[in-house]
Amino acid sequence: MELKQAIQTRRSIRAYQARTISAAVIRRLLDLARYAPSSLDGQPWHFIVVTEPKIKAKLVKLKNRFCPVEKQMYRADFMGAAPAVIVVCVDKQRSFNRDIENGVLVTATLMLAAHGEGLGSVYLSAYRTDKPGLAAALRRLLRLPARITPVTIVPLGYADETPEPKAMRALAEMIHYEQFRRVP
Amino acid sequence: MELKQAIQTRRSIRAYQARTISAAVIRRLLDLARYAPSSLDGQPWHFIVVTEPKIKAKLVKLKNRFCPVEKQMYRADFMGAAPAVIVVCVDKQRSFNRDIENGVLVTATLMLAAHGEGLGSVYLSAYRTDKPGLAAALRRLLRLPARITPVTIVPLGYADETPEPKAMRALAEMIHYEQFRRVP
Repeated sequence: MELKQAIQTRRSIRAYQARTISAAVIRRLLDLARYAPSSLDGQPWHFIVVTEPKIKAKLVKLKNRFCPVEKQMYRADFMGAAPAVIVVCVDKQRSFNRDIENGVLVTATLMLAAHGEGLGSVYLSAYRTDKPGLAAALRRLLRLPARITPVTIVPLGYADETPEPKAMRALAEMIHYEQFRRVP
Repeated sequence: MELKQAIQTRRSIRAYQARTISAAVIRRLLDLARYAPSSLDGQPWHFIVVTEPKIKAKLVKLKNRFCPVEKQMYRADFMGAAPAVIVVCVDKQRSFNRDIENGVLVTATLMLAAHGEGLGSVYLSAYRTDKPGLAAALRRLLRLPARITPVTIVPLGYADETPEPKAMRALAEMIHYEQFRRVP
């Protein structure tokens, strides 16, 4: 797939076909994702590939328990039907105080790589700074050592929905020259 | 450019040719970057396009002043020679408490889009959680309203260096099944 097309046509997908994802495809995705930029090229990533229904169900429960009020319309139940869920983590010892940034950078790349393989995905956070309980519970569930921090949760699957075209904010609202609200 | 090739061949570029970047190319980049995912599709982004030497020089000075000890080998002086610098900001009122994440997601997309246009770039942070002075100084310099938070600084230019091939950490070190350190 062309880069431009990949960026423009990737959408958040929350409904998946029953079709499983082969282990080879998952490896290929992660192999590509790790080319993402990282602080001082530390490549601090760890990917937990979850396919067992019991662990997926616990991920759903945790995400719902810690869901903020304003995001209640996006409950995580759909994740139980994803054939695979990638929990993206970073090793603090390789992150140079940029845990979150490194985790998000690889997640952005992973989502594009997934789209390039014909897979749908959606970005979910694996922590809340105001509620450390979410990350702590994930750490217990996935047996993460203390230095490994969960950053995102990315359900993957072949799309079983076609989202409406995205209403884009005008670029003119977002672009400024030299300083905020200056035009050329 | 193919998506896979774009992801695999993008590298951090810190040396730039004198050649300027046309306004049309910059608009095209930002137009593509804003297809990045964002929390509740808030598209909270603001891009400050800096090309004036005086403002670039101030960005360099600020980045150097707030550079952590372990990153001193990456001083920001090179940024003064970048024909354009994009300061990526987010509007807190559209970010749903995920300012940083939204800013990093669009930055990852912007860096790939730049590479697709034949431009080099590098990811720099626009804040330090332990030293709010950096973001505060950027806010004054760029006249950002209180609700607008700077997240990253992305120098752009046609590459004047060819980085050594990247030493990649083995995927096998990063991939786990169901739980940390479990294999299939």
